[in-house]
Amino acid sequence: MPVITIDIGILDKEKKAGLVRELTAKASEVTQIPAEKFIVLINEMERDNIGVGGKLLSEIL
Amino acid sequence: MPVITIDIGILDKEKKAGLVRELTAKASEVTQIPAEKFIVLINEMERDNIGVGGKLLSEIL
Amino acid sequence: MPVITIDIGILDKEKKAGLVRELTAKASEVTQIPAEKFIVLINEMERDNIGVGGKLLSEIL
Amino acid sequence: MPVITIDIGILDKEKKAGLVRELTAKASEVTQIPAEKFIVLINEMERDNIGVGGKLLSEIL
Amino acid sequence: MPVITIDIGILDKEKKAGLVRELTAKASEVTQIPAEKFIVLINEMERDNIGVGGKLLSEIL
Amino acid sequence: MPVITIDIGILDKEKKAGLVRELTAKASEVTQIPAEKFIVLINEMERDNIGVGGKLLSEIL
Repeated sequence: MPVITIDIGILDKEKKAGLVRELTAKASEVTQIPAEKFIVLINEMERDNIGVGGKLLSEIL
Repeated sequence: MPVITIDIGILDKEKKAGLVRELTAKASEVTQIPAEKFIVLINEMERDNIGVGGKLLSEIL
Repeated sequence: MPVITIDIGILDKEKKAGLVRELTAKASEVTQIPAEKFIVLINEMERDNIGVGGKLLSEIL
Repeated sequence: MPVITIDIGILDKEKKAGLVRELTAKASEVTQIPAEKFIVLINEMERDNIGVGGKLLSEIL
Repeated sequence: MPVITIDIGILDKEKKAGLVRELTAKASEVTQIPAEKFIVLINEMERDNIGVGGKLLSEIL
Repeated sequence: MPVITIDIGILDKEKKAGLVRELTAKASEVTQIPAEKFIVLINEMERDNIGVGGKLLSEIL
């Protein structure tokens, strides 16, 4: 059941697979909940859709 | 006010309309809150962005 | 995998069970995804934590 | 740390920058938390993915 | 329809009312969407439930 | 900026600190984004508020 949602910039497939694999393994290890129970949702967002400190990330990076 | 958010794979318009119609009707029936108060948000996600049991859904299905 | 999240006021256990049962059944029927794949998360919120049209729900209801 | 997430229709860049700037400034003012601590996430959604009162927004507007 | 969700620490009622009022007004002004269409959800979180840079907020503040 | 949100059952403080530490470290390692940029939000939920396969978790576990 646990659901891990990540709001982040655009990633390539390799990094997405890495996040799913590693975050599931660590979360399972810490919580003692079996890995197969975990769901990971990756919300990729454009830099125009992310604000930090009042500015669009596209205007900062 | 109630907000129903669905994180799910890619759907065609007919299924999206069906989810909005049916989930709103059932949630209204169960909670006795009028249907017009409900908002439904459908977050469609690619299989590369969904992890189950530590693997990308695109590597499972 | 599909995750249905409901942001709503405080509910009794019977209504929560009803929402889980009915929304899962309808979503499965509409999407043709097996019911056992669905996760439902109910975020109960106090009326002081919900705003509609610029006012706290506790000041409206 | 505070995270402000907005689920909304499609917006142009100017409106997104305006939302990030104004919501961060007001939230900082109300909560007395420094503006640079705030993150804003804008989830743009197609009208086919938004339901109001049991109907797709694309069938209402 | 727009939904503004704020994940933040524990607030008193006055600040919650201020956030709902001010964020709704500003978001309406920027997007030209009428204020009464906006929903604001305030997710109050304990400092033990918030992590920044790998540490619990309760261990930082 | 990346925000990691975990929807999960009730946890003790030690497990929450472990999740924040480990998930931040792994996510930083995989994405090459500095650890201090990451925010982790832990949404603890009662078993009456979680549904799996159409049933409340409190009726399954």
